[in-house]
Amino acid sequence: MTAFSMNNPVFVTYLITASIMILKLMGQGWMTVYRMLKVDAGLLNPEDIKAGPTNRNPRPEQLEINDYVDRSRRMHRNDLENIPAFLAAGLLFVAVGPSLMLANILMYTFVAARACHAIAYATKRSHETRATFFTIGSAVVIVMAVYVLVAALS
Amino acid sequence: MTAFSMNNPVFVTYLITASIMILKLMGQGWMTVYRMLKVDAGLLNPEDIKAGPTNRNPRPEQLEINDYVDRSRRMHRNDLENIPAFLAAGLLFVAVGPSLMLANILMYTFVAARACHAIAYATKRSHETRATFFTIGSAVVIVMAVYVLVAALS
Amino acid sequence: MTAFSMNNPVFVTYLITASIMILKLMGQGWMTVYRMLKVDAGLLNPEDIKAGPTNRNPRPEQLEINDYVDRSRRMHRNDLENIPAFLAAGLLFVAVGPSLMLANILMYTFVAARACHAIAYATKRSHETRATFFTIGSAVVIVMAVYVLVAALS
Repeated sequence: MTAFSMNNPVFVTYLITASIMILKLMGQGWMTVYRMLKVDAGLLNPEDIKAGPTNRNPRPEQLEINDYVDRSRRMHRNDLENIPAFLAAGLLFVAVGPSLMLANILMYTFVAARACHAIAYATKRSHETRATFFTIGSAVVIVMAVYVLVAALS
Repeated sequence: MTAFSMNNPVFVTYLITASIMILKLMGQGWMTVYRMLKVDAGLLNPEDIKAGPTNRNPRPEQLEINDYVDRSRRMHRNDLENIPAFLAAGLLFVAVGPSLMLANILMYTFVAARACHAIAYATKRSHETRATFFTIGSAVVIVMAVYVLVAALS
Repeated sequence: MTAFSMNNPVFVTYLITASIMILKLMGQGWMTVYRMLKVDAGLLNPEDIKAGPTNRNPRPEQLEINDYVDRSRRMHRNDLENIPAFLAAGLLFVAVGPSLMLANILMYTFVAARACHAIAYATKRSHETRATFFTIGSAVVIVMAVYVLVAALS
């Protein structure tokens, strides 16, 4: 019997929440693209200010940091610091056989916390608001990792 | 029966493409090291301009951003935004039992798209060229994640 | 028979080392938070210099780069370049059935190398010291990925 099977409801919870978080992570890249095109600024590479279909009016200042675009990159970096760790910790967590209720609580809490974090970040809420949702998400990953470590050592 | 077995040809495709992408990701770090040593510039930390076996002629300007080195770091960041998501999405995709043909198409397309993206980035091709290959890779991950989500919810 | 089972001692080694590395990765985020609060500087977002419970005395220079805080962010970025790749490579490595001794050597070496890397980075040791531990960790991931690739292709 493997834990990684569609017959295991804990694994199904993981599949749902993990695929949502992967879509969030990929979507953040597209938010950066959208914002770059919208403000026609915040480009990253010297060659990006050559004229082309997506840059009709190239200017050197397009390479300067633009907060609207850079905010999306900072959100992306925060995602990279949290989502891959969730994807790994969640899979290991499934492997050690937690209760369905605990898995549901932890995994859906992570999804909700990261959604709120993204909204708080995009709408420039206070540092404290953002930090609260970051903390909740981070705590979920830490709890899952400690749970796995204890189960594997015992 | 587990999907994560060498007897499952879809899993073998995943093992091949995932290990190639892990090697690409690790190789990008070594490209940065190679470029730093080659131009003797683009260092990151204040302590890196102390004299030592790998820095015989330390100078403060070694800490300035050097496009040749920083380009490799930007490539690395782009990898980090895409490859871990592929590694996770691919594994979940295997778990929900897609056809071998679909898995082959998606996973080898991702590898090819990321290889082309790296070449386009390293050789300073136009933003549009780079964006095309980024889009193909990103689409593969999104398709796999949506496929998993639909399978898990149904 | 699945390789991803608590009955497989190689998988247990993976669970232990992977959960430790996930905790290291999450801990790095908290080191940044700790350092930001300690020096009351190194903030990242314009809205972070609004007065609030965690910022009683906001000043524009809090947004300047602070090496003490930024060092933790650079350590985090280095973790992101290595730990997710280890988590993925290690899982694939378990799947292809290596000997327990080889798995133990590689996985515990990675943990030790990353711990030494973190200490060397935090205490501003020479570039060569840091590079040595980075190289050991990177080599472990590369060896595991090549091992998986060869096993999957044969």
